[in-house]
Amino acid sequence: MTAKIIDGKKAAAELMESIQKQVKNRSDMGLLQPCLATILVGENPASQSYVKAKHKACASLGIRSVGIHLPADVTQKELEKKVNDMAADASVHGILIQLPLPDGIDEEKVLQCVPIEKDVDGFHPVNIGRLAQKNRNPIFVPCTPSGIIYLLEKEIESIEGKNAVVLGRSNIVGMPVSLLLVRQNATVTICHSRTIDLPEKVRGADIVIAAIGRANFVKANWIRPGAVVIDVGVNRVDDPMRKRGYRLVGDVDFGAAKEVASAITPVPGGVGPLTIAMLMRNALRAATLVDGV
Amino acid sequence: MTAKIIDGKKAAAELMESIQKQVKNRSDMGLLQPCLATILVGENPASQSYVKAKHKACASLGIRSVGIHLPADVTQKELEKKVNDMAADASVHGILIQLPLPDGIDEEKVLQCVPIEKDVDGFHPVNIGRLAQKNRNPIFVPCTPSGIIYLLEKEIESIEGKNAVVLGRSNIVGMPVSLLLVRQNATVTICHSRTIDLPEKVRGADIVIAAIGRANFVKANWIRPGAVVIDVGVNRVDDPMRKRGYRLVGDVDFGAAKEVASAITPVPGGVGPLTIAMLMRNALRAATLVDGV
Repeated sequence: MTAKIIDGKKAAAELMESIQKQVKNRSDMGLLQPCLATILVGENPASQSYVKAKHKACASLGIRSVGIHLPADVTQKELEKKVNDMAADASVHGILIQLPLPDGIDEEKVLQCVPIEKDVDGFHPVNIGRLAQKNRNPIFVPCTPSGIIYLLEKEIESIEGKNAVVLGRSNIVGMPVSLLLVRQNATVTICHSRTIDLPEKVRGADIVIAAIGRANFVKANWIRPGAVVIDVGVNRVDDPMRKRGYRLVGDVDFGAAKEVASAITPVPGGVGPLTIAMLMRNALRAATLVDGV
Repeated sequence: MTAKIIDGKKAAAELMESIQKQVKNRSDMGLLQPCLATILVGENPASQSYVKAKHKACASLGIRSVGIHLPADVTQKELEKKVNDMAADASVHGILIQLPLPDGIDEEKVLQCVPIEKDVDGFHPVNIGRLAQKNRNPIFVPCTPSGIIYLLEKEIESIEGKNAVVLGRSNIVGMPVSLLLVRQNATVTICHSRTIDLPEKVRGADIVIAAIGRANFVKANWIRPGAVVIDVGVNRVDDPMRKRGYRLVGDVDFGAAKEVASAITPVPGGVGPLTIAMLMRNALRAATLVDGV
């Protein structure tokens, strides 16, 4: 079997187009332009490029964006004040704190300054708490996990009853996607660095979510024939053939795994583009929460 | 193999004795007597008996308790006001809202009125959110899940790397115990009513947590020889031999399962007594949070 390669770029582009239309509709109706504020602390190049990409996506959809860049030595108090200012600003609908924050900053305290109605990243502890509980609904759900579910729903008729194995239990991907899969009625196994006999666990999976950050770690012979594989890893491996000296690969040994899986996401071009599309969707939703349209 | 029967009553009694000593030490040092407030709404007989048992446990340990009983037709606003009053009362260290609340009451809104430092039941969404996240620490953890981990830690040298299968994903037991087991580095599979081939899932478990509320549902031949089985179910089955006409049984077919497991909790006398002991521990802790001793 050769797997269907899930085209995350295309799925994201369709989603972005639909968001763009909705933004335009709002504008035609005379409603406020959605506005996303990003808060970036320090000079981490990866964080800088992520924030830049988010602003670019906003611009392409007609969403206003405001970027706040603070030095790495900002104090907890100064940072919280900035977030509180954005929280109080009615023209700002969504607030995104680019993580990780520098050492010495209490990340949770900063995240708690974001009103849950503006928490477009879904990382406020109340939104995460609601995600973990039945009959409670988070206002926003973290973007990469939402993107994963979005892709799965396009590939699989029903997630209900499927055996999902999640590799990784990070705050940003592994844990929230596990909670989302439970909400979708999958049977979910949460695996991590202390799991014993990981290949055996993965062999039981109809759905494999790999989010551990280890290049080509998941082998083809771990994958049950016909499983759907979502690869969230983005890892650099040396590649002297490339001008920049490296290329990006996922957590799954893609070349071999695609001969076993029924569908698989590539890296890059799989989950990545969905993350930003989900953020845009959340930013739009933050505006609709305010005016109820 | 005949399983060790885990004596929850004895474990709870030891814990209660240690709490009692600590309460007395506080009193000898002239510190405030710990105080638990319970809020009960309506006339549910099970809820009434649970609340009564909690007050009795407080009395036996020297913990002060205050019981507030509101009619089933209390409004959201009146109920929140009562909780807010207790929240503002410095002589009250812990607040317990007896669940479930009547239909028409927004449970989460009521729970959010409890300051997280007084949330001895651990159900505030921020405490649950922290439980679901790495590097975040809930101030309080729900009592039955804590009791389960307490018993497991006595039976198993290390939970790390063990395969734990949790049956049930309730807000009160299944989900929080799953999150606790992940924090303890177990590989956790969350099963529920939509799980396909539950026996096969249970057969993979070194640790089985049954919390589904179905009498004798888990069969002995589902259990891997040597597994540790924690039975959280409390179900009534007709028993004409008993004066009251019923007896209590767990979710596990105890008589047969104890011939396969290495250790198993009985019902009653297993997890139940630990729940109340953990609540007492939390009430004491709530007082120590205030005065730092």
